[in-house]
Order: sequence, then C-alpha cells, then structure tokens
Amino acid sequence: MSKAVTSRQQDYAQWYNDLVLKGELADYSAVRGCMVIKPYGFALWENMRDVLDKMFKDTGHQNAYFPLLIPKSFLSKEAAHIEGFAKECAVVTHYRLKNDPNGNGIIVDPEAKLEEELIIRPTSETIIWNTYKTWIQSYRDLPLLINQWANIVRWEMRTRLFLRTAEFLWQEGHTAHATAEEAIAETMQMLDVYADFAENYMALPVMKGVKSINERFAGAVDTYCIEALMQDGKALQAGTSHFLGQNFAKAFDVKFTDKDNKLDYVWATSWGVSTRLIGALVMAHSDDDGLILPPKLAPLQVVIIPIYKGEEKKELIDNKAQQLVQQLKSAGIRAKYDDTDNARPGWKFAQYEMQGIPIRIAIGTRDIENNVAEVARRDTKLKQSVSLDTLSAFIPELLQDIQQQMYNKAKAYLDGHITPVNTWEDFEKVLDEKGGFISAHWDGTAETEEKIKQLTKATIRCIPLENKKEEGKCILTGKPSAERVLFARAY
Amino acid sequence: MSKAVTSRQQDYAQWYNDLVLKGELADYSAVRGCMVIKPYGFALWENMRDVLDKMFKDTGHQNAYFPLLIPKSFLSKEAAHIEGFAKECAVVTHYRLKNDPNGNGIIVDPEAKLEEELIIRPTSETIIWNTYKTWIQSYRDLPLLINQWANIVRWEMRTRLFLRTAEFLWQEGHTAHATAEEAIAETMQMLDVYADFAENYMALPVMKGVKSINERFAGAVDTYCIEALMQDGKALQAGTSHFLGQNFAKAFDVKFTDKDNKLDYVWATSWGVSTRLIGALVMAHSDDDGLILPPKLAPLQVVIIPIYKGEEKKELIDNKAQQLVQQLKSAGIRAKYDDTDNARPGWKFAQYEMQGIPIRIAIGTRDIENNVAEVARRDTKLKQSVSLDTLSAFIPELLQDIQQQMYNKAKAYLDGHITPVNTWEDFEKVLDEKGGFISAHWDGTAETEEKIKQLTKATIRCIPLENKKEEGKCILTGKPSAERVLFARAY
Repeated sequence: MSKAVTSRQQDYAQWYNDLVLKGELADYSAVRGCMVIKPYGFALWENMRDVLDKMFKDTGHQNAYFPLLIPKSFLSKEAAHIEGFAKECAVVTHYRLKNDPNGNGIIVDPEAKLEEELIIRPTSETIIWNTYKTWIQSYRDLPLLINQWANIVRWEMRTRLFLRTAEFLWQEGHTAHATAEEAIAETMQMLDVYADFAENYMALPVMKGVKSINERFAGAVDTYCIEALMQDGKALQAGTSHFLGQNFAKAFDVKFTDKDNKLDYVWATSWGVSTRLIGALVMAHSDDDGLILPPKLAPLQVVIIPIYKGEEKKELIDNKAQQLVQQLKSAGIRAKYDDTDNARPGWKFAQYEMQGIPIRIAIGTRDIENNVAEVARRDTKLKQSVSLDTLSAFIPELLQDIQQQMYNKAKAYLDGHITPVNTWEDFEKVLDEKGGFISAHWDGTAETEEKIKQLTKATIRCIPLENKKEEGKCILTGKPSAERVLFARAY
Repeated sequence: MSKAVTSRQQDYAQWYNDLVLKGELADYSAVRGCMVIKPYGFALWENMRDVLDKMFKDTGHQNAYFPLLIPKSFLSKEAAHIEGFAKECAVVTHYRLKNDPNGNGIIVDPEAKLEEELIIRPTSETIIWNTYKTWIQSYRDLPLLINQWANIVRWEMRTRLFLRTAEFLWQEGHTAHATAEEAIAETMQMLDVYADFAENYMALPVMKGVKSINERFAGAVDTYCIEALMQDGKALQAGTSHFLGQNFAKAFDVKFTDKDNKLDYVWATSWGVSTRLIGALVMAHSDDDGLILPPKLAPLQVVIIPIYKGEEKKELIDNKAQQLVQQLKSAGIRAKYDDTDNARPGWKFAQYEMQGIPIRIAIGTRDIENNVAEVARRDTKLKQSVSLDTLSAFIPELLQDIQQQMYNKAKAYLDGHITPVNTWEDFEKVLDEKGGFISAHWDGTAETEEKIKQLTKATIRCIPLENKKEEGKCILTGKPSAERVLFARAY
C-alpha cells in the first residue's frame, strides 16, 4: 500500500477519493456509477446499520421487505413525486436474453418485451402505499410502523464513492397513522433518532431543521433534515424525515375507518439514511494520513503490533499480547493482535493509520522488560507509555475519550462555521473565503432561493428547528424576512 | 383472521399458500412474481440470517457488497454459465423516463438508451470475478473469503411464495484460493455449515450429496447440496456449495503468483441459501392449524395470554405475567404478554397457533389462586399445568425439548422415506404412492436421467456423500451401475 495521500489543502476531492480507496472502504466497479463496498467498508456499514436498527426497533418499528421493481404507472400516481423521481432511473423493459441468430453472442430477445416497464426503486413510497391499501382498513390497523433495509438505484450523472452513486444501500421507514398529529410526532421522533445517531455514534454534530420548498422531498408536505459540516466548509445532508400528509394515501386510495366509524385517508411519514453517511464520516473526521473512525463504529478498535528481533523475543510479546486481546474482547472491545511477518512495523503503523483504527498498541522487547506498552491514539496521534498491568482498564476509557474528543473537535468546527451575515457582499465573501453555514435573512420565495443558487451555488440547507424569530431584510432582494435561515454550498 | 386453512390432505399446495398468507409471513405484490415479506416473515428471516452470518464469520468470511447490475457481456464470458443464467432475467435498457409529448403520462425516453444493456444479477459470479481480477495478484492475497447478502432476480415463469419468486433474498459466498485442494475443502466446509444450520436450527434433517451433471450449477465443476424432504414426499434443495475449479478465473483472467513465483489461475467456490429456506421450514413442520416454528428461529417463542372477567381480576394476572416476561427475557427468551382487549382468548389462541409460536401460556383467575399456569406446546398441542414458581425454569427446557422433538419427528419421516427400489415398476409405484427419496441404481448418463425425468418428473436429487459402492443395474436401462443415487420429485 502506498502511503501517499493527496493532502486536503492540495485537492480536497482527491484526498477524499484516496482515503476511500486506500482505506479499503470501497472500490470502483465495471458498472457506471456503481461501487463495490469492500469488506472493511461493509463492516463499518454493518456497525452503523446495527445501531440504527436497534434504535428503530426500540421505537416500535419492524422490518419488512418490498419488491425491488415498481410498475412505471405507480410513479405517476402522486403528482409531485413523479416530477422528483421519474427522471433518472433504471428501466427494465425485457425479461429474456437469447443467442444472436447471427452468432454475435447474446442479445435481448425482442419477443420478451414487458407490457408495462418496471422501474428499479429510486425510493419505495409508491409500491409500499399500494401494499398498505390492502393492509389498512380500520384504526385498529394503525399505526403501521415499518422499516426496510434495501438497495436503491438513481441514475445520477456525476457520481462519487459513497456520496452519490447510481446504486446505494439505505433504510427507508414508511409509517401510517390515524391522525396528522401522530404522523408529525413520528416525523420528529425519527429526526431525533438520526441526530442522536449522528452525534453519539458518528461523533458528528448536526443542525436539525426543516427544508425550504425547493429542497423538499417530492411528495412531502414537510421535509425535516439533519445537516452536517465537512472540513472543506461544505454542508452534507445526512438524513431526512418526511411528513407526507395524506398525499400518498390519496394517490393510492388508502382509507381507514376511525373509532367513530368515519372514513378518512391515512396519514404518512417516510424517513431514510444511506451509505452516504460513510462519506460524511470520512470527510468530517479524517486527516492527511488517512481515515479517523469514531470508536463506537470502528470495525476494529484496537490493534496490537509486536516489535522484536528474533523469534525467541517474540514469544514473550505474544503471551502478553494474546492475554491483552482476550481481556479486551471479554470487555466487548474489538481488538486484534497483528503478528504477521509479511510487513515491518512501520508499514503496519501506516496501514492502520490509513484505516483509522482508534488505538494502536506497540509492544517491544524492551517494553516487556519494563512492563509497559506504547499506546497511540489515532485522532490526535499522541503516544504514551502505559503499564501492562493497567492497560486493559485504560483502553475502554481511552476509547470513550477519543469518541468524545472527536465530537468536541467537530462541534467546535461547526460552531465556528455558522456565520451571521447581513449584506450580499459579506454573503459572497464568507461563502468563498470561510465556507460553512451562513445565517442570513431570506424573503421566503422559491425564486430568490433559486437565484441565490444560480449566483453562488449555495442553497438553503434548512430552517433550524426552534429558530429565533427576528425581523430583517432578505440578503438578496431586501424584502422583509421574519427569521434567518442557513445557507451553504453542499454535497 | 379466518381460521379456515385448507388441509394438507385436501390440497397440499393450497395449504402451503394459506399458511404463508394467514401466518402473515408474506403477501403477494403488484409486481408479477415478486412478493412482499411481511414483518413477521422478515423477523424469521432476520433470525436465520443472523445465525448464518455468525457461522460464516466464525469460519473466517467477511461480508462485502457488489453491484446489482451486471453488463450483459459479462454473462457470456463463462460458456456454461451463460447457458444457465442468461435465459430469463430482467434487462435494463434505458435510464430515463419523460413526460409523453402527447400527454399520455410518462414514457421511457428513447434517447436514454444504454449502450450496453445491464442485467439485474441472477447470481454474482461474473461481476465478482471481474472485481477479484484487480484484488488478486499474489498468493498473499489468498484465500479471499467473501460473502454477500443481496437480492436476486430470475424471471421465473411459474412462481410460488418463498419457493420460487422472481425476486428473492439470499446470501452468496464467493471465495478464491491458491489450490484446488483448498477450494474443495472450502466447498465441503460450507456444505457442512448449511447442514449444521438446517439440522440444528431449522430442525430439518438433510441429505448431503453431490449433484449429477444435469443438476449442476452452470459454470461449476461440482455442485454439492443439502436436500430436505417435505411432508408431501417431495424433495427440496435447501442449499448448494459449488467447486468452480478455475472456470471463472479463466473467464475473467484472474491469475496469481505463487510462492515459487509461478503464475496460475485462481481456484474458486461459491455457495448460497435463500429465502426459499422459509418455504422449506413451513412445509416440513407445519400442520392443518398453521405454522410450527422451531424455537431457535421463532421470532416470538413464548406468548402469555390472560383469561379473566373484570379489570380487578386482571391486575393479579398482569403482575404475574409481567414478572414472568421479565424473567424469560433476562434468560434470553423472546416472550410477550398479550393483554390486548380487542380479541377473545380463543381467537388469540387460534392466531398464535396459526403463527406457530412454540409455547402458549394461559393464566386465568383461578390459576392465580392455585399458583399455576396452563402451558401449551405448539408442536404436539399437549397442555400441562405448571406451578408459577417453577415456570421460568421450565420454559427454557421445554423450548429445547420442542426443538429436539421437531427434529426427531422430521428425521423419522425422512428415514422412513428413503426407499431402496430395484425394478422400474416399483420405482413408479413408490414415487406415486409413497413419495420421498428413492434409492436406485442409475447408469450414470445424462440421457437416462433426462428420460426418467420425462417419464416420472423425478430427478436425481443427489449422490449421497460417502455413498456405499454396490454393483447393480440401472433402474431404467439395465446397464451396469456402481452405486445407488437418490431420486425424487422436487420443488
């Protein structure tokens, strides 16, 4: 493995790609816009998925699985939805291949054309609400609290590993309720679950807010989101939770009889996060030497490396190291002793730094004599000598401290990059020179938001929850505004 | 929920469908041949997946994720593979929809035609070996032990819930090795893992064996399988493990440098089980009252139902029941107290029987006075009165006993349905009147196997491992044979 990673300063986009590839999270594939998630990257995703899955189940949700393929006509049923999702998607038109009668390999059998084309799901509201129609008759069938872990295809023109790929993995919650109030409460609950996950597991502070109309999910009444900030000052939408009103119930004619025997349309929510979170994790924390992963999600939390000359000396280290690995494992810590002899310690150090293992322990022959080991933390790169007697008690504390310090650092960066701005001149200047979120007044119209986007590539990331009301003038038009919103350039 | 289930005797196929639908495992969908896996069915699949996933990891495998879509040309690279898989598959030809200029909703944009069509994976050998080419250079990169949990599409003409659906969920292991011996050892190891899972978790005894050429996986040198027997005497292939030789390495040009610096093609295996296992589970164990699930995999293992008149009396039961649920949960048992008041106890009994909950505990007002509860096991329907003081200790033992008895019953059925047969007359008679596996001599040719299939619909399910060598004459042609093989009609 080559140690050379492009520095952030030199080329942030290339630095990110280097980390994903050299950190062995993912690889390009032969299929345009689709990636391969490598074992190390997938182990990270499994940890994220398992934590989220438990959070969903703890809040009363069950998993289910709906078809990958959606009849084309379903997409047209919700008017706004079709505008947002019918554009770029993978269309299945045939169901058979055959040998070319002219001997040129295999061809699509023209006789095997589908009567109605099928779309690979770009999101599953339509197929799910078509199913809910048969599952919901009465208030007794509500609420229906279902989540699905699935793959999704959106034919993006410009793709980037994890951040924007034609196929990606995600979860999508789809719930049905008897009242608007209950559906809104669910929408907010899941936004809180996402924020909790981002902050307490990913060590990633986020802004919670509601989207402007321009950025709203196609078919939603309101889209809530968590927005995070990357080290280059660009924002990244890390999760969304939608209050769908009765839009999909009306589109698919899903009604229920309430307690008073009155018929009404069902209220809906949907919410999702995806493998994009891995991109956020990489970009928020890592440095020019490689990935920095938060301990709670790192596939491997502690690696122990022996430093020795001669097999004889190694045995002493082996004993101590294996004993330590056992102690750590029984404390629930993901630890490994790497005594492979195909690489020198220095090479291993670099590799584990590249992959962002939170703690590296080096044990040398002299360390054994002194009953100590050298403990290096990945986030700050600080090293310290720790007694072998206290090491297994020290490590869990250090992991907690790394988790906390990573959050604190990201939080300080976020707090330092929410800049209130009152003139258009400052708006452009802060955007170009400092980046981050800009807190500015806006006249509330889609036209102005669009104009600002065209001029600067900045969009409204969200209107923060519990936003302070404050009279002001729109940063672009000077028209009256009742509150500030958060602008940023975004991934 | 209607209690009426078609009996097995009346119509076995309809009985199966009734159980899947009324047991709430799955539902039909709007998409031809695709099903919806309902929360209860998916919870069952999650339990199966988690056990298997741990088994794979314990044998050194890691999970990864490869693209859903495969370039059409990839399928042609392995000659046998294309014959087996290119036939019926979902073909993506376009990547965009647009509004019909004539105002008839949305249509496929003819300008968004893919240069090369993409196939939704019917299995992933091709895309994975195309990737392995870039990951494998040296013996140091081997073995590569990777598994993927994924959805698969095969355009089956006749579909049945779980048993044969156009889309299904599965896992597919794909490993790469430096020697044939190592790859064969891996193939056999994974066959053993599958047999272990079937027998010790699904309570499903299986025959382990190797497939005849006719039934071999397209592209494999040898296909090993586990075959189970359903209650109607038909066999069901429950899992396969393939030794692929160097076929895919040659097709995708994957070579490695060995320790002596010699270049050779890599040796391969692949192995998989799918949601089809749920169909096997249902058909092997259930009865005319509904599902019977083995305790180790049942999403809910114990349900407690109160029987009372008046809220006052109920409180006494509530206390005991909630205490019991806590005791069971802390012992790792999946238990629930169902005190909902929207259904009478009898209706609940029937529902939980339909869903195959292994143990039902009923606690009535008089039971509380006598300090007992009525414990009913789903498999035998036997009931007994158990002291509340010993109940929490009794339940884990009873769950173990149910698991064991379910296996014993299925094993006795299997053992009683392997019938040695020496004449063609007996062959047809046993097939029609008794069913099950027929152990018969066969001349070893594909032609004879095909002829037998045409005459009787029976195929060779497998040549059992460690089969006894025995001189004999082919059941159909009278030609010499060196061993008996297992014939059966199969799902």
